[in-house]
Amino acid sequence: MADSPPGPKPIPSRRAFLRAGLAGGAAAISGPALAASADPNPANLPPNVADWTRMLGEGVAVRAYGKPSKHEAHIGRRDVSWLTASPQSSVSFTPLHEIDGPITPNGLCFERHHSGIAEVNPNDYRLMIHGLVDKPLMFTLDDIKRMPRVNRAYFCECAANSGMEWRGAQLNGCQYTHGMVHCVMYTGVPLKVLLNEAGLKANAKWLLMEGGDAAAMTRSLPLEKALDDALVAYRMNGEMLYPENGYPVRMVIPGWEANMWVKWLRRIEVGDQPWHTREETSKYTDLLENGKARRFTYLMEAKSVITNPSPQAPVNHKSGFTVLSGIAWSGRGKIARVDVSLDGGRNWRPARIDGPALDKALTRFYYEFDWDGSELLLQSRAIDQTGYVQPSKAELRKFRGVNSIYHNNGIQTWHLLKNGEVENVEIS
Amino acid sequence: MADSPPGPKPIPSRRAFLRAGLAGGAAAISGPALAASADPNPANLPPNVADWTRMLGEGVAVRAYGKPSKHEAHIGRRDVSWLTASPQSSVSFTPLHEIDGPITPNGLCFERHHSGIAEVNPNDYRLMIHGLVDKPLMFTLDDIKRMPRVNRAYFCECAANSGMEWRGAQLNGCQYTHGMVHCVMYTGVPLKVLLNEAGLKANAKWLLMEGGDAAAMTRSLPLEKALDDALVAYRMNGEMLYPENGYPVRMVIPGWEANMWVKWLRRIEVGDQPWHTREETSKYTDLLENGKARRFTYLMEAKSVITNPSPQAPVNHKSGFTVLSGIAWSGRGKIARVDVSLDGGRNWRPARIDGPALDKALTRFYYEFDWDGSELLLQSRAIDQTGYVQPSKAELRKFRGVNSIYHNNGIQTWHLLKNGEVENVEIS
Repeated sequence: MADSPPGPKPIPSRRAFLRAGLAGGAAAISGPALAASADPNPANLPPNVADWTRMLGEGVAVRAYGKPSKHEAHIGRRDVSWLTASPQSSVSFTPLHEIDGPITPNGLCFERHHSGIAEVNPNDYRLMIHGLVDKPLMFTLDDIKRMPRVNRAYFCECAANSGMEWRGAQLNGCQYTHGMVHCVMYTGVPLKVLLNEAGLKANAKWLLMEGGDAAAMTRSLPLEKALDDALVAYRMNGEMLYPENGYPVRMVIPGWEANMWVKWLRRIEVGDQPWHTREETSKYTDLLENGKARRFTYLMEAKSVITNPSPQAPVNHKSGFTVLSGIAWSGRGKIARVDVSLDGGRNWRPARIDGPALDKALTRFYYEFDWDGSELLLQSRAIDQTGYVQPSKAELRKFRGVNSIYHNNGIQTWHLLKNGEVENVEIS
Repeated sequence: MADSPPGPKPIPSRRAFLRAGLAGGAAAISGPALAASADPNPANLPPNVADWTRMLGEGVAVRAYGKPSKHEAHIGRRDVSWLTASPQSSVSFTPLHEIDGPITPNGLCFERHHSGIAEVNPNDYRLMIHGLVDKPLMFTLDDIKRMPRVNRAYFCECAANSGMEWRGAQLNGCQYTHGMVHCVMYTGVPLKVLLNEAGLKANAKWLLMEGGDAAAMTRSLPLEKALDDALVAYRMNGEMLYPENGYPVRMVIPGWEANMWVKWLRRIEVGDQPWHTREETSKYTDLLENGKARRFTYLMEAKSVITNPSPQAPVNHKSGFTVLSGIAWSGRGKIARVDVSLDGGRNWRPARIDGPALDKALTRFYYEFDWDGSELLLQSRAIDQTGYVQPSKAELRKFRGVNSIYHNNGIQTWHLLKNGEVENVEIS
């Protein structure tokens, strides 16, 4: 065989693809063009070798903290500040169609603020625990870091995620329809450890959590949940929380709506009843058709979405082997199964769940199939360990109407067109 | 109770700490100073409220891709370019003492290059598979992303990690003694899927993996491992690989030395015997006392290290409740147990393993104890699912001498002094 490695090949033709089978578009190449052995001396390599193999690259001293390739610079959170009163009371969305696996990288976790990002100086940070306790306590950040800690991966989903879809298909892309969710590995102190230190009075039943931002974000938390799995967290994926995610300390309320995951946590007060703050009365309640509102709807029910293909991530081949990728999650525990439909919910097939499927964490699923090139109506539905099945949007609307913007966990439909493009559609 | 939240408190005194028990240095505070209720209107808050609660913060549009707080800017990989011929043939180390949990954040994963960071253009990227195959194949990046994929968290450890410790305690900090390891969630195509597509000839027994960097990094891989769990990976913690970690495609050889995890993967050749490249002859072999060298010592045996306290992370309190944190891993599978000694290996106690303890992945352990303020000799030892027990350095030297720089998985000793400082020491 000759010693010249082949240069770049054009995008494979349909014929090459069929020849290659599962390998998709990989081009079959003929023997004589192949390199027979490795030559470690770059000077001996033939002229069609790429520049990056011909020249020394940057060294290790360049970047103490790494970042993505410049070729991935288009991937980022996208905001909708045009839709909100100000960027400080707005949201930016996780680019779900540009990531894979069960973990969200720290740089791409969605943000939702009510008065912007509190820029907390860790040396001046304090957490106060008081109210119906035997011994009020004040913690510095060093105090908190000195406590027993645990590591848990949890999804964090805004109650308003998919909120604009209540009134029909409105946003064209899973980043916008479902991008107010992320999942990282948290390190934190179980809240019950701190409460035990303070000592709960016999009549303690509720907690108030207050953020250090200018919204003084406040939410009531039932004591039972506080003593179950709530965390006072300070790390995400191993490193300290990013400022927009609550640096240096935030609440983690596993499986419950993200608004309760109070960021820049400043104060926990123990009481005997809920506080009925703005965020649990005029907001984060679900207005029904009859004018009544559901309150304290903390739990995020089982949900899923196909992230690829999706409107921002069309199919780039004409037909053949296709991998469908998506995420599923449930506030009630683990995901037991995910089903996928290619025909708008008439027929369902079990998806392949891959990687860790942890309690109250994003769970990655795949469905591999041979696309015949025709139009498809793609759907996924999650089933959690309790047997709860993700409902259709029509079923949800039957009971909840369309007045709310919260807790829409209905099945999402993507219309895959013959040209590979994908649209957000409603099916009746 | 008064409505003025307390301002910052000084670092708690020893007396305050003892009073607070497990809460460590958390200061007990008296009732009258406490705020009784949340007031969501910042204008009504008393004057000792911090600036970040008084003023609107930055909005969501500021940063499409997030980064750590400016207050954490001191945390980074550290290089030893002063020790190596050039920054392009050097290493930078993971700051193990500044992270926690089982996952390494992407920005802090150690680097080791032989000719610097190949700056690969993803549009021109190609992967060739050839040699003893039925059908040579050439893949574009889109081709690879179109294949069936899996998500797995694996540790990646350089064979030279802890290498300078063969001849005694030399480096003062776990970042330098053990920082050539990281653990992220990879997304990739099982190598066996690609090999099945190409079709292996009956006499296929070994693979050559070649990098696209100017070192043309080449290593031989036994076919059995290639068909077991090797991955052709392109994502870490959900996003595309960072340039220094092999963007856009690298090998993942679970449990085996990182030098084989060829970055910027360019070519896989199938053959019937190993290639005996530079990286598996003059380098990455272990010279014994008798002049013979161990070869093909791929597997990274069970190992552990206490990351906190450690020389770069002293204890900041004088005595009392103390959390010892560390990581353990094994190339043979899962970590079954970690023991901790406070007296240089005389007495051992089981540590608490926390969070997911996955196959061939970093596993976080903690040991909580009451420090009486006296000097301690801190050690940890890992036991994996096969029953293998991490050896002492003395045991290792008995069999392997001190000529090698590779595969030192001996027990590390930290000397905790009365003033909280920590030193890297050898005990006989």
